[in-house]
Amino acid sequence: MNFKQKLEIIIKKNNSLLCIGLDPDLEKIPNFLLKKKDSIFEFNIEIIKKTHDLVCAYKPNIAFYEAYGLKGLSQLKKTVEYIKYYHPEIPIILDAKRADIGNASKMYAKSAFGYWNVDAITVNPYLGFDSIEPFLEYKDKGVIILCKTSNPGAKDFQDSYVSPGIHLGSGLNRTPREIVEPLYLNIARNVVEWDKKYKNCLMVIGATWPNDLKKIRKIAPNMYFLVPGIGAQKGEAEKAAKVGVNKDKSGIMFNVGRSIIYDPYPRKKASELKNIINRFR
Amino acid sequence: MNFKQKLEIIIKKNNSLLCIGLDPDLEKIPNFLLKKKDSIFEFNIEIIKKTHDLVCAYKPNIAFYEAYGLKGLSQLKKTVEYIKYYHPEIPIILDAKRADIGNASKMYAKSAFGYWNVDAITVNPYLGFDSIEPFLEYKDKGVIILCKTSNPGAKDFQDSYVSPGIHLGSGLNRTPREIVEPLYLNIARNVVEWDKKYKNCLMVIGATWPNDLKKIRKIAPNMYFLVPGIGAQKGEAEKAAKVGVNKDKSGIMFNVGRSIIYDPYPRKKASELKNIINRFR
Repeated sequence: MNFKQKLEIIIKKNNSLLCIGLDPDLEKIPNFLLKKKDSIFEFNIEIIKKTHDLVCAYKPNIAFYEAYGLKGLSQLKKTVEYIKYYHPEIPIILDAKRADIGNASKMYAKSAFGYWNVDAITVNPYLGFDSIEPFLEYKDKGVIILCKTSNPGAKDFQDSYVSPGIHLGSGLNRTPREIVEPLYLNIARNVVEWDKKYKNCLMVIGATWPNDLKKIRKIAPNMYFLVPGIGAQKGEAEKAAKVGVNKDKSGIMFNVGRSIIYDPYPRKKASELKNIINRFR
Repeated sequence: MNFKQKLEIIIKKNNSLLCIGLDPDLEKIPNFLLKKKDSIFEFNIEIIKKTHDLVCAYKPNIAFYEAYGLKGLSQLKKTVEYIKYYHPEIPIILDAKRADIGNASKMYAKSAFGYWNVDAITVNPYLGFDSIEPFLEYKDKGVIILCKTSNPGAKDFQDSYVSPGIHLGSGLNRTPREIVEPLYLNIARNVVEWDKKYKNCLMVIGATWPNDLKKIRKIAPNMYFLVPGIGAQKGEAEKAAKVGVNKDKSGIMFNVGRSIIYDPYPRKKASELKNIINRFR
């Protein structure tokens, strides 16, 4: 079973497009958990116990574990193992935004899909097709390419108007000095081409840019999108759900981290958000 | 003492612009070391013992440690501690190509400069200024921004002709639909602006693109560059050294990994490369 099949089964089973970001910050974790040995892992378990029937995926951002060094990372390992054991039907997305030149990207792919044993990973396209290919070669796994990120700085370079071109490691068909589209759209267009061969591409598009989301949906009518920014980042859930879905009213995951996991009632909050998304899709 | 001061002292002391990439691959490590418990760490120690008076920096690429999970990462920790203890004058660059939206980038910066305790880190600019700022705020540390990478895929997006703009989190002065320069040059121009405030920026430029290196040196006459691609990647050391140095015949580090660390005589090979670089700078 490949990543997309796994995702589609859980979306139907839980009737949910909600992905929860497991991004634990020791400064925000409740006191009673901080006293435990593996407080990050214990915190994650609490969230998973309360939400596993409301989600279509869990997405730990590895930055929040790396910050605590080997101790933090060992608790990510335990968290992944816990989900794989108790909820093997729920896909795990490692939010790592990795990419490097060929041989190092191979090592990152080996880490994500071998060691961490997750179902999908987020990757950064700046280094080009050959930096993403080592991930794509794991055909049963999902490769989620950053397209338009949810932060304000996404405008800095992703919005630059660029000359066109499709890049498949087989030469360039660029037309220099002719401007056609913003960089993020050119990347979306490339990802669509890559997906024709590998069939395991997804894209990250921030809910903070609903107009851009609409344009990308036009280019990639059937691709799954991972959409952050409807929670703490105050993205417009309603507008994003309306313009972001595919023709089957699916094809999208909304990631919410902080505004669920630090809510005093995470289950209630997750349920509310799941329903809001379902109402507008 | 900040990163650049530390770097300049060792460049003079060892009369070297050579940075060695500590990128251990268990498939290439000699058999007698594989039998040891911490074979990656033991391999690194061998290289460091043989080369510490020939280098201006060591650059472990974290991908090669992540591939082996917590066991690999614990040997990266030991390697950093070993260098800090026996050769505290040699800067350590964590090649991690990190970046994320604000709060996650803060966690990555905390990881690099807190937990890993390295002197500098490589970062990816695709997410914009606000994704790099959390690293820049560690003013004594070096922040090495990917500009033009050494791989063939660098052409895919980094060479796109773009509309201009300088981005400092304070609004855009972009002129849409006017094309001026390739994306990597626009990023270089932005990094020069960021450096005016933070004074701790460096850039990565592959030796595989000597003409681009020359253009970037024009824009950033005084900045330090990290230049990979003269070893296994067959970049042109001679041309890169000639066009890449600043007016003091310095301002550049040449990274070499595989072609030194897997050579049967790493010290001899490192010494040769150090001398070739010095001859042409």
